[in-house]
Amino acid sequence: MTPERLARINSMLDKRQIDLTVCMEMVHKSNNLAAVLRTADAVGLSQIHAVWPEQGYYVSRNTSGGSSMWVDLKTHTTTTSAIENLRGQGMQILATNLSDSAVDFREIDYTKPTAILMGNEKDGISDEALALADQDIIIPMEGMVQSLNVSVATALILYEAQLQRKKAGLYEQRTIDQDTCQRLLFEGGHP
Amino acid sequence: MTPERLARINSMLDKRQIDLTVCMEMVHKSNNLAAVLRTADAVGLSQIHAVWPEQGYYVSRNTSGGSSMWVDLKTHTTTTSAIENLRGQGMQILATNLSDSAVDFREIDYTKPTAILMGNEKDGISDEALALADQDIIIPMEGMVQSLNVSVATALILYEAQLQRKKAGLYEQRTIDQDTCQRLLFEGGHP
Ligand SMILES: C[S@@+](CC[C@H](N)C(=O)[O-])C[C@H]1O[C@@H](n2cnc3c(N)ncnc32)[C@H](O)[C@@H]1O
Ligand SMILES: C[S@@+](CC[C@H](N)C(=O)[O-])C[C@H]1O[C@@H](n2cnc3c(N)ncnc32)[C@H](O)[C@@H]1O
Repeated sequence: MTPERLARINSMLDKRQIDLTVCMEMVHKSNNLAAVLRTADAVGLSQIHAVWPEQGYYVSRNTSGGSSMWVDLKTHTTTTSAIENLRGQGMQILATNLSDSAVDFREIDYTKPTAILMGNEKDGISDEALALADQDIIIPMEGMVQSLNVSVATALILYEAQLQRKKAGLYEQRTIDQDTCQRLLFEGGHP
Repeated sequence: MTPERLARINSMLDKRQIDLTVCMEMVHKSNNLAAVLRTADAVGLSQIHAVWPEQGYYVSRNTSGGSSMWVDLKTHTTTTSAIENLRGQGMQILATNLSDSAVDFREIDYTKPTAILMGNEKDGISDEALALADQDIIIPMEGMVQSLNVSVATALILYEAQLQRKKAGLYEQRTIDQDTCQRLLFEGGHP
């Protein structure tokens, strides 16, 4: 590995936000998942979650811009088990939902440990997820179309989190564990 | 047309931002273009532009969530003619570009008449566009991946514009012309 690449990987590791994540509930289009992984890397997530009942959840390395190498994708077979896992990490659980009771996504404090639940392309978020979440959030829509593309919605929320966390200095202190660092330095050095 | 639908369309028309647009330079994946159209409608754009040298630039009505009905897509055969058109409308021209000289996208004043140039999936923005633009802008990247998906990048910038324009009260005064209103009321009433 060149010294430049080592420095680049180390600088990325310094900025990883281990207490910020998203969970994709049955999001099935691989181009959407790939775009989410790419955004996740760009905002400094080290892991994202997906609820997917079957084997074989696949992301093309190509459309993800190589981000699948840098962001772990953890799958869960049910929404309940996914949310239990996230709550076990002390995270507030936000459900994106196109309802009148949802609050504007920019009103949330994302400097807290946070997991954002994103819904399926066709049916949106499940009733189960809504029941278990702490808060519904919505991105304002000024036009005729009801919803945004799911990878677009994910990015808007994650970049709001990035802005708040940047202001709070959370990109200036390494929080990621030593084992993950070693693994990524090893894998990233021998791609 | 029901009174509810008429009211819905009129409220959308009230909020249209005729002096804010994007121009997609050779963006060729139809799912990306569809996602951009959907976001454009959500932020209140009445028209977007594309540089496309050939006939037949197509957006699936399905993946665009029906937004192609509400947002005009104007194509240009060259980047130069597209930018001339936009400048002729008095717009500042911003080029998204992954360079060191680009300024953070959140530092721009989007309450001014603004057109944002987005680049092709593989090659990014053209040298021609860079040369003609007033300013390069970039979305900060904290990770390893070099770039975001183009529809994601477009949405992040448009929602920053939405935020600024909302604060400035620009969603509270109808600016769209009467002819376009009549056409959209007619077409939207008989979909
Ligand atoms: C295409 S939308 C699903 C639309 C579905 N028909 C519904 O009623 O929810 C897919 C996912 O994108 C996210 N999403 C899309 N637009 C959103 C918005 N304006 N606010 C919050 N989340 C949104 C949500 O996670 C949603 O479940
Ligand atoms: C996939 S990127 C193109 C990457 C290309 N390899 C390059 O060097 O520009 C497609 C388009 O998305 C937009 N884009 C992606 N990431 C961006 C970022 N971080 N800042 C600004 N624009 C971005 C730009 O319009 C870019 O031309």
